Amino acid sequence: MDNLGTMATTSTEYKTKKQLICEAAARLFRDKGYSATSMRDLAETVQLKASSLYNHIGSKEEILREICFTNARRFHIGMKEVEQLPHATASDKVRALIRLHIRIATEDFTSVTAFNDEWRHLSEPYLTEFKTLRKDYENRFLSIIEYGIQNGEFKPLDAFTTLYTLFSSVRWLYDWYKPERQVTPEALYEQIAAFLMSGLER
Amino acid sequence: MDNLGTMATTSTEYKTKKQLICEAAARLFRDKGYSATSMRDLAETVQLKASSLYNHIGSKEEILREICFTNARRFHIGMKEVEQLPHATASDKVRALIRLHIRIATEDFTSVTAFNDEWRHLSEPYLTEFKTLRKDYENRFLSIIEYGIQNGEFKPLDAFTTLYTLFSSVRWLYDWYKPERQVTPEALYEQIAAFLMSGLER
Repeated sequence: MDNLGTMATTSTEYKTKKQLICEAAARLFRDKGYSATSMRDLAETVQLKASSLYNHIGSKEEILREICFTNARRFHIGMKEVEQLPHATASDKVRALIRLHIRIATEDFTSVTAFNDEWRHLSEPYLTEFKTLRKDYENRFLSIIEYGIQNGEFKPLDAFTTLYTLFSSVRWLYDWYKPERQVTPEALYEQIAAFLMSGLER
Repeated sequence: MDNLGTMATTSTEYKTKKQLICEAAARLFRDKGYSATSMRDLAETVQLKASSLYNHIGSKEEILREICFTNARRFHIGMKEVEQLPHATASDKVRALIRLHIRIATEDFTSVTAFNDEWRHLSEPYLTEFKTLRKDYENRFLSIIEYGIQNGEFKPLDAFTTLYTLFSSVRWLYDWYKPERQVTPEALYEQIAAFLMSGLER
């Protein structure tokens, strides 16, 4: 799975100002809600004057769009790599996708905003575009699970329920994971995949 | 597991006005965020005049408290019943708790607010009280998992990671479950428990 990249967390020094602003915004969206977060709150959090903040980002919704579509891209690039893995079984692919979700959740806090609730605040046409990308990702993940059920690799579970249980099961990492906790993403992957995959495999 | 109650959804006719207000509020908190939801929004949603709304509920925070502590009580009553199940293995108890989480998620939409993010908006001393209840529930669940690992019923997984993966794995139901979908909570339980328990059991 080396072609999915290492699971080390991105360290602060490699982040652009824009990324740092997006992460601070994602935390504010979580803590206060998107609607109640103002550009002034954000400027204070990142210790910039409002005027300097506008050098990096045009509006609150632009930040939300940036977060949502950057993460949608990461999930889609990951999915494409997984689909193209040579000689991979459905099981290999699901493992690689669990790893992808853990990697994204532990690397970048903004992914919670994109994957969970805050995308609902996008305006049109972005909302429809985002929902289309999300649905496409879900359908491709679902196809892999269905293929594994059909070829007998997986238990005869309901594919849809399984997909959502898988998606959801790593969601606590968003609230909980901090690099300071000294649990590596790789160790988390080993534990979580051991648990989930034996639920799935025959 | 009959002593945990049936899993039928509570039908509207059995809900009090206060419950209906709390559910409408929980939906607004999800869609707009707690901070951005006003009593006026709520009055409009439940089709009451603001003055009538105040006959039922004193403030937005009172609604949040009501939601959080009502649900905390439901989880604690469920936990107590599970702990007292006679001759139950760790596996029986974890199954009963998965069933409890599915039952609460499918019966009452407000539980999302309590269990997930919105409790963060409680003010003191309620915030500390709620966090204490939540921690107590987690510790009791963790003890059951640890006991199952120690006595060899469960695989030698990390108990903490397993607990959070279990908690999280039914979270999608909050966004997705609607009685109109014609999937019974019992059918969901069968699928989800089959998946999760074979991940856990040796």
